[in-house]
Amino acid sequence: MKPIRIGIAGLGNVGEEVAYQLIKGFRVQNDQFQIELHGVSAKSKDKKRKVNIKNIPFFDDPVAMSHSPDIDVIVELIGGDDGVAKDLCFSSLQNKKGLITANKALIAKYGKELAEIAENDNLFFSFEASVAGGIPILKLIREGLIVNEITKLTGILNGTANYILSEMELTEKNFDEVLSDAQKKGYAEADPSFDIDGIDAAHKTIILSGLAYGKMPNINNLAIKGIRNISLNDIKYCSELGYKIKLLGNSLVTKNEDNEEELFCSIEPWLIPKNFGLSNVSGVLNAVQVQSSLAGSVMITGAGAGGKPTASAVLADIVDFANGTNLLSFGRSSFEIKNNYNTKAYVDKFRFYLRLNVIDKSGVLANLTSIFKDHELSIESFIQKSNHEDKTAELVIITHEADKLILDKALISIIKLDGVIAEPVCLSIYS
Amino acid sequence: MKPIRIGIAGLGNVGEEVAYQLIKGFRVQNDQFQIELHGVSAKSKDKKRKVNIKNIPFFDDPVAMSHSPDIDVIVELIGGDDGVAKDLCFSSLQNKKGLITANKALIAKYGKELAEIAENDNLFFSFEASVAGGIPILKLIREGLIVNEITKLTGILNGTANYILSEMELTEKNFDEVLSDAQKKGYAEADPSFDIDGIDAAHKTIILSGLAYGKMPNINNLAIKGIRNISLNDIKYCSELGYKIKLLGNSLVTKNEDNEEELFCSIEPWLIPKNFGLSNVSGVLNAVQVQSSLAGSVMITGAGAGGKPTASAVLADIVDFANGTNLLSFGRSSFEIKNNYNTKAYVDKFRFYLRLNVIDKSGVLANLTSIFKDHELSIESFIQKSNHEDKTAELVIITHEADKLILDKALISIIKLDGVIAEPVCLSIYS
Repeated sequence: MKPIRIGIAGLGNVGEEVAYQLIKGFRVQNDQFQIELHGVSAKSKDKKRKVNIKNIPFFDDPVAMSHSPDIDVIVELIGGDDGVAKDLCFSSLQNKKGLITANKALIAKYGKELAEIAENDNLFFSFEASVAGGIPILKLIREGLIVNEITKLTGILNGTANYILSEMELTEKNFDEVLSDAQKKGYAEADPSFDIDGIDAAHKTIILSGLAYGKMPNINNLAIKGIRNISLNDIKYCSELGYKIKLLGNSLVTKNEDNEEELFCSIEPWLIPKNFGLSNVSGVLNAVQVQSSLAGSVMITGAGAGGKPTASAVLADIVDFANGTNLLSFGRSSFEIKNNYNTKAYVDKFRFYLRLNVIDKSGVLANLTSIFKDHELSIESFIQKSNHEDKTAELVIITHEADKLILDKALISIIKLDGVIAEPVCLSIYS
Repeated sequence: MKPIRIGIAGLGNVGEEVAYQLIKGFRVQNDQFQIELHGVSAKSKDKKRKVNIKNIPFFDDPVAMSHSPDIDVIVELIGGDDGVAKDLCFSSLQNKKGLITANKALIAKYGKELAEIAENDNLFFSFEASVAGGIPILKLIREGLIVNEITKLTGILNGTANYILSEMELTEKNFDEVLSDAQKKGYAEADPSFDIDGIDAAHKTIILSGLAYGKMPNINNLAIKGIRNISLNDIKYCSELGYKIKLLGNSLVTKNEDNEEELFCSIEPWLIPKNFGLSNVSGVLNAVQVQSSLAGSVMITGAGAGGKPTASAVLADIVDFANGTNLLSFGRSSFEIKNNYNTKAYVDKFRFYLRLNVIDKSGVLANLTSIFKDHELSIESFIQKSNHEDKTAELVIITHEADKLILDKALISIIKLDGVIAEPVCLSIYS
């Protein structure tokens, strides 16, 4: 049996765990396959690690590793959608190596291009770890549900954002405090914007859409809202009303009147009824729900990040390579995949949650309800909490089912109202 | 491209849907693969079906189809763990055909033997549809989590039983009435015992254990309890207390003092707290939760039965065959799999739900609590509902955490108590 020779670039949390498992020997490694770590590249050669890499060839330049004749597969765990990670990925395939990566930003941007090279040269290229960590969601779509038409994907795709929202509810601390705690615990980056502003979830939604529909949304016209403006009060009101707030990546395909496929896609926080499966996905967990033509709705939940779960996904790709499995990376010819696909925001008829902060003076409510009436919007429930000290009031409204586009028009008028003192928070209610 | 020639034996719900999809042409069938239906076998050739099989070679004897030189893969959808289904499966592999089946009873019994033949002759053999219908749980364990040690599996594996329990709660009808409704709707068989007595869930638990641990429980010493004795009152009491009742197949591996692996396995109804993901798996849905060494806990939910979801799983196996994928059927050498493995019932320290029906006379409660005291069992909550008409009372007890083996001993004494008028219902509370 010819050994499979692995080169790992990047020895962070995930890379270190993958190296550790390869050297320690994981289940099936020794009985079914001979898989060997044959090269590593990292910023520091001598940093203290849980795994001893002294006897493994070390490459200061990861791209040089992709030229080595002693490596069969490159595992790219550097990260970032440009620079050395990009150079390494392209160089690996150009040098006829297999390529495995966990790099969602890179796959969202260059996944199609890389898959085309791999497909042309019949090279292995897989990126299971790039979406939802330890959850084998790409294999689920690409193989388990391969014969299905996928019509909708809904995902809790960012563990940091989900952790913050869960902790706010659990600890009754406000956003900034929980974020700061999460940074101390290592659940959030020093610069948390990718996670809490929805960019990371957007990258994953783009990759999932590529697999599910063969269409990868254009990130520049993608509707992305993060969770920065969710207050502790929002969490409390929603909980009282029977909901949890979750940041969801949604994408769905429908046919328009001309029988053309249209892709709707949004990343934004939603209210999820507490008896829905998605509402119980708490903390750093991720979940993806897939609507499919034959199998119906399939949902998978698990650890969305972390060294060990992500290593599990990387190693599963390595075993697929060792098995000689060579499927199309996106489950279809990459030449058919539409890149930078223009999407519309996922809007439909929903019920909505609206939180407004206003000056507590007469006339404000009358003006507000008059805007609702003008747009034929009706109110299902209403909470007003006045703050006598600063003479402001917080208004929470749940609307009856309404068209999001109409609600957005109403919001434009509401923001301009005399007495409205902050940008309203408006969230759709999942049904 | 050489076409892949399929022979289907059995044109029930699932077989008809598979044939329909193959003739209609499903996603990826025509662009990536040439897959052709080249033979069918069914009880009736001329029965009216949603698919026209007039032009497909028809075999009165399915076993004869496995001898045909014009067939590459046999899809066995006849069912049953013996007779023609068994003959066909063995004959298919002996004739060097690929074999795909949805037959859980057969795989639970002969899966290892069939896998050994397939492994020896490097033949494709897969049975994704045998467990949890449209949910690709076997692929998840066999490939997605391949590098993980699996330590525990928990599954809602029988859609009929889950439907009955959900409907009892929803409609407040009793067991017999809901079962009869389910039979009318086609959700339960005329003879429902396989489903409601836990046998079907046991077959699936055996298959899952084979994949997860390489150990297939001996069905003859497996702890199996069904749902026949669950009353509407049980459902109501549990709901009030914050639980739902679910029939679970549980298996877990631990090491004993001598460092030997022991397999604990039970199929029985449990109380699941309403904020647990498993409690929201309602109706005919199935779910499987996998505890793994690296990826942690992964749960997957979806349609556990029905023509289309099950066809989705069968067709995914067909695509794997077409792709040239040829993995070990159980994710490890079948020669290493331990068949008819002796298991112990899954018992541990849990809290318990106990429902007793007694004659409402003085002394009964004193005798009962004295038995509890003798066994050092303590009561967390207690409900007594007296029926003055027939002078009986229903007692519902939630215990503090206790050892199941001790509780079982107490139950032996309780059953013998003067005044206890029916077999007590005792369910573990999932935690």
